[in-house]
This record gives sequence, C-alpha cells and structure tokens, in this order.
Amino acid sequence: LLSSYEDRSASGCSQVQLGFRYESRDQRFIVYIMQLSNCSALFLPADQKMHVRMAVLPPVQATHCLFRTRGLLPQDVVAINEVFGMQTSHNGLRQKTLRVDICNTSKSGHEECLAGAQISLADVSCSQERHTKWYNLLSRLHMSEINNK
Amino acid sequence: LLSSYEDRSASGCSQVQLGFRYESRDQRFIVYIMQLSNCSALFLPADQKMHVRMAVLPPVQATHCLFRTRGLLPQDVVAINEVFGMQTSHNGLRQKTLRVDICNTSKSGHEECLAGAQISLADVSCSQERHTKWYNLLSRLHMSEINNK
Repeated sequence: LLSSYEDRSASGCSQVQLGFRYESRDQRFIVYIMQLSNCSALFLPADQKMHVRMAVLPPVQATHCLFRTRGLLPQDVVAINEVFGMQTSHNGLRQKTLRVDICNTSKSGHEECLAGAQISLADVSCSQERHTKWYNLLSRLHMSEINNK
Repeated sequence: LLSSYEDRSASGCSQVQLGFRYESRDQRFIVYIMQLSNCSALFLPADQKMHVRMAVLPPVQATHCLFRTRGLLPQDVVAINEVFGMQTSHNGLRQKTLRVDICNTSKSGHEECLAGAQISLADVSCSQERHTKWYNLLSRLHMSEINNK
C-alpha cells in the first residue's frame, strides 16, 4: 500500500478515488466520490476553492445527471466522501459514460475545468459490492494541446 | 456473447474495442485498436471517412505519443486491427491517460472529433497478457452540453 501511495505522490498527475455500486433491487446507481490526491498538479492558488463536478452522459431527460460537491481547499490529499445516486436500468447504465471534472469558479462566476477523468460504464457489474478505484486526472491543457497537432 | 452484442446494438452509443499489453522486458506499452461498433451513433455521412486518433497524455518530450489509424468508412461494425506502441517505464505509464477520439477531416482539412473515450492507465498491469475491453464513446456534443449547465 505504501509503495502504491509513493507511486502516486511521485506522479505528475492528480488522482480521484471513486467507488461504484449498482443496486439492482432499487435500480439505482451510486457513485462515492471519496478523495483527491496530488492536488498540487492542478496548479490552483492555495486560497481558491475547487469542487468536483460529475455527470452521467448522455443525459436521460427528467433524470438528475449532474452533481457538484461542496467547495474544497486544495491540499495534497483532500477527503471528500460525498455520494451521488441516480435511478437507471442496468442496461441503460451500461451505455453511459461518467465524466468527472475538477473545477473552480472564477471571480466572474464562470465554472472552469482544471482536469478530468472519463469512465466508460460499459462493464459496471450488477453486484451489491462497492468497487473502488483511483483514476488519473488529465489536465485540460493537454486536451487542447492534442487538438492543435 | 450474443446477449452482450445485443446490448451494444440496442445502445445509443458507439463503442471501441481496445487491447492493452505492457512488455516489461522492452519497457514497451502496446495498444491494439481492434474494432468499432454501432458507428451510426456517430452521425457521420455514409460517404465520409473517419479515423481513430490516440494519444498517451501528458506527452513525454521526444516520445511519439500521438497515433492515427487509416481512414475508415462508417459501417455498423468496423474492423481496424492497428497497433500502436511506445517506450515508457511502467511507473511512468501509470501516471498517464489514454485519450481515444473518433475524428473526421472536414473539407477544409480541419480534424474534427466526433466522440471519444478517456482511459486512466493508473492500473495497467505488468503482465505479458493482452487485456481486451469495449469502451463507450461519448459524443462531443454531450461534453459541450455540460459545460453550459
């Protein structure tokens, strides 16, 4: 466990830890937004807050598919522990993609994305167990870089 | 297998099948771009070609991190079978994200992304085995939608 933590710390990228569970009885998909690590890689000024924005896409009409956590101060490791749930069939869910973005709000009130992960839900299992995993966050800067090559 | 194919066909989203392998002897990461399914969801005119663009990000200087397949005609299932390889340490690789985009080239010569997947490489294993998986492709339209909410 320590070596896995060291690998993360040595990295250039921030990471987000997420947990997934699909409750077949209630047809409910639950995402646990657990923590962020290596936030210094987001290059956010120390006094500015950030938040996690999550969306299950493509959106289903009349279903709440967008979620934002509370504001968070950037530290090396940030505990979040917020939970997002949505109603969906298992087959419907498996056609979806989860988009997770770390955002901050500029002084003008505009939401800006700093980095994000995108997770295909094609193989979310139907078990009651929670599956937890760390995901690398890709900076928005690198996304725009490849669009100019 | 049939039921898994039916689920995909019934879906609103296109999918890409990728295979991953890390060769520790040669410190080489290999991506197999195998096939696309349900391409009609990309809404590309039938006579226009598309291609797959792949990037390992953030880029390492002096390392070739961007790859494009040949042009492909949109059909329901498109076999691609192209291979991309790059030199990297295993620890370095685990800080990266693979971005896969389905693009077409407009008449003006500009590359346009139609849909994409983004895959955290945080848990790519060091085994010689090839791990194959289908990933949902998220349309660019839905990405811009959430940025306006």
